[in-house]
Amino acid sequence: MADQDAGSGEDKRPTGIPALRWEEPPEGPVLVLLDQTRLPAEEVELVCTDPAALVEAIRSLAVRGAPLLGVAGAYGVALAAVRGFEVEEAAAALAGARPTAVNLAVGVRRAQAAHREALARTGDPRQAAAAALSAARALHREDAEASGRMAAHGLALLDELLPAGGHRVLTHCNTGSLVSGGEGTAFAVALAAHRAGRLRRLWVDETRPLLQGARLTAYEAARNDMAYTLLTDNAAGSLFAAGEVDAVLIGADRIAADGSVANKVGSYPLAVLARYHHVPFIVVAPVTTVDPDTPDGASIEVEQRPGHEVTEVTAPQVPVAGAGGGIPVAPLGTQAYNPAFDVTPPELVTAIVTEEGVASPVTAEALAALCARSRQVTIS
Amino acid sequence: MADQDAGSGEDKRPTGIPALRWEEPPEGPVLVLLDQTRLPAEEVELVCTDPAALVEAIRSLAVRGAPLLGVAGAYGVALAAVRGFEVEEAAAALAGARPTAVNLAVGVRRAQAAHREALARTGDPRQAAAAALSAARALHREDAEASGRMAAHGLALLDELLPAGGHRVLTHCNTGSLVSGGEGTAFAVALAAHRAGRLRRLWVDETRPLLQGARLTAYEAARNDMAYTLLTDNAAGSLFAAGEVDAVLIGADRIAADGSVANKVGSYPLAVLARYHHVPFIVVAPVTTVDPDTPDGASIEVEQRPGHEVTEVTAPQVPVAGAGGGIPVAPLGTQAYNPAFDVTPPELVTAIVTEEGVASPVTAEALAALCARSRQVTIS
Repeated sequence: MADQDAGSGEDKRPTGIPALRWEEPPEGPVLVLLDQTRLPAEEVELVCTDPAALVEAIRSLAVRGAPLLGVAGAYGVALAAVRGFEVEEAAAALAGARPTAVNLAVGVRRAQAAHREALARTGDPRQAAAAALSAARALHREDAEASGRMAAHGLALLDELLPAGGHRVLTHCNTGSLVSGGEGTAFAVALAAHRAGRLRRLWVDETRPLLQGARLTAYEAARNDMAYTLLTDNAAGSLFAAGEVDAVLIGADRIAADGSVANKVGSYPLAVLARYHHVPFIVVAPVTTVDPDTPDGASIEVEQRPGHEVTEVTAPQVPVAGAGGGIPVAPLGTQAYNPAFDVTPPELVTAIVTEEGVASPVTAEALAALCARSRQVTIS
Repeated sequence: MADQDAGSGEDKRPTGIPALRWEEPPEGPVLVLLDQTRLPAEEVELVCTDPAALVEAIRSLAVRGAPLLGVAGAYGVALAAVRGFEVEEAAAALAGARPTAVNLAVGVRRAQAAHREALARTGDPRQAAAAALSAARALHREDAEASGRMAAHGLALLDELLPAGGHRVLTHCNTGSLVSGGEGTAFAVALAAHRAGRLRRLWVDETRPLLQGARLTAYEAARNDMAYTLLTDNAAGSLFAAGEVDAVLIGADRIAADGSVANKVGSYPLAVLARYHHVPFIVVAPVTTVDPDTPDGASIEVEQRPGHEVTEVTAPQVPVAGAGGGIPVAPLGTQAYNPAFDVTPPELVTAIVTEEGVASPVTAEALAALCARSRQVTIS
C-alpha cells in the first residue's frame, strides 16, 4: 500500500527533484514516487511498499513519462521479488498498467529476465531478487547517463548554432527530470545551458490541453532557479516575430526512420514558425525513440484523446466535476478534436540530438548511423 | 440597478441571440444585456434601468466586443436621458468605463451629440431624449447592416476562392453576434455560408487564455445549429497538415494603413501556418477598424495583459480563488508573457473583407479606397 507523505513547499532542493527513488529503511525496501498529479500545488510523495501500489500510481499518472515508466517498471519487479510477492504475476500487472507505454513493458521485462536467469542459475530467490534490483538500478543509471550525454551534445550544438551565447530557448510540454531517470531530454539541454551560464531565458509553452508546461516544466525551471517565462501556446508567434527566440528545443514520443518526429500536439506549429523565422528547431531524444519499423511520418498513427480534455478544465484543486472530472468551459455536447501529438517532417527539423550524437541534417542515413552506434555500445 | 433574470438553457432560439436589446415595459425603458461572463453555462440577462448599472456591466465584461460596446454606450446615454438622469455626467461615466475601448467612446459621443443638438434646438428634454434614443437605434441598425454586408462580401469571396464548396473554415476568438449589433464579422461570414448550405465544418480555436472560442464561439455555433468542432489552439497545425482547413476567417482589433492586422493573440501563428499550407487567410472587419494614423504593424502598441490569465485557470463556476480570482496551474511566482494580440503583416493576409468591399491583395491603396467609399456613404 502507498502512504502519503506531504513534503514541504518551502524545501528548495538545489537541483533536480527525484521523481522516483529506491529506499531501504529498516521496515524493508520501498519505491518512493513524487506524485505528479499534485504538482505544482503540492509536493506529495507516494511510498510504494508493494507492486499493486505502483500499478495504481502508474494508472493514476502519479508517475509518468516514457523513460521514467521503464525505470519504475523495473523497480516494481525488484520490489515484488525483494518483498516476496509472486514475481511473474507482478510483472504482468505492471506491464499492463498502461498498455501503450512501450518503455514500461521494456523495463519490466529487463528486470524480469534478470530475475528468471538468476533463479534458474542459483535456485535462490534472494539472489534472484538482488539480480532484479541490480537490473533496475542499471536501467536507472543508463537512463541518467543518456540524459547527461544528450545534454552535453545538445549544449555543444546550441553553442555552435548560436555563437553569440545568451540563449533564449523555447520549449513545449515537459521533458525534464519528471519523465526521466536523469534530467530528461530537451529540458536537460536547457538546464546544461543554464548551469554553463549561457541560458538567458527559457520560454515555457503552457501546452494545452493538459498544461504540462505550466504545471511541470515551470515547476522544474523554478526549482532549478532558471530564468523562465510561461506563455500560452498562442503567444509563441509573437515571440518569434519579436526576435525573442534563438532556438526551439523539444522532445519526441517517436521518431520514424526518415526523421519525422511525433511529439506533443503543438510541436508542428512551432516547427513551421521556426522555419518561417529562420530559428533552429532541435529535437532531443534517446535513440530508443527512433523506430526503424515506422518508415515515415504518414505511417505514424495519431492517438485521439477524449474531448473532455478540451471542453473541460481540470486542476488538482478543482472540486466541481463535469463528465470528464473537470469544469465545463464549452457548451454541453460540444465535439472536440484532440490529437495527442502531431508529426513534424524531417525537413523542418534542424537537428535530432541523441545520447550517441547529433543527426543534422536529419536524414534516414544519419539516424541509422546513430542507432547502429547505440547497438555497438550495447553489445560490447 | 440591474435585475438578474435567469433564462432557460433549453430555450433554443432559432438564429442569433440578442446580446443587447432596448425594451419599453410599462415600468419604463430598460436596456437588457445577455451576461457574457456566465456563458456558456448559463444564459442570464441583466436588465439595466440606469446608466450606473450599464457602467458596471461594461466594467465586468458582461457586455463586450468593440462594435457592441459602441451600441451599448449610445443606448446608455439614451437611457440616462429618457429616465431623467444627468446626461453629460452619465456620458462621461459610460465613456470612461473602459478607457481603451475606442468604439465605446464613439458610440457615447454620437448619442450625446444628438441629445445636445436637440436640447439646444428645442429646449425640450423629452425631445432631446428621443433624439438620443434615435441616434442609438441608428448606430445599432448601421452595425447590423454592416455585418450583413460583410457576410455577403465574405461569402462571395469564399465561393470564389473555393469553387468546390463544402467550406471547412477555421476561426479564432469570438466575432459573432455577442460582439456586434448584428451577426458580427468573421463569424457572420461562416454563418452566411452555413445558411447557404456551403459550410461543411467550422473549426473553433479555443483561444487561450480567456477561452472566448470555447465559451462564446462554440455557444454561438451551437445555437445556430452549425457543424462545429472545438480544438486547442495547438491542434490547428495538425488540421492544416491533414488538409482539413480550406480557409481561415478572423476579425481584427485594429488594421494599420499598410494592412497589418492586430487581432487576438494566436492569429499570427495561424497566418504563418495558412501560408505554409497555401490556405487563404481572410480578415473580416468594418472599415472603422482601419486606422489611417497607424502607418504599419511596427507602430501598433501591443497591450500586455496580467500574468494571472495564464498562471491561473478561471471559469464562471470556479469557487477557489487565487490572486487573480482563479485556480493556480503554475508555480506561485511564475512570470507570464501575455500579449493581448499579435500583428499579422499584410503579405500573409489573403484578403480584408469590409462592409464596403474586399481588399485583395492587401495594399495601402486598396484599403484607402474602401475607407474613401465609406466616407462618401456617410456624407451622402
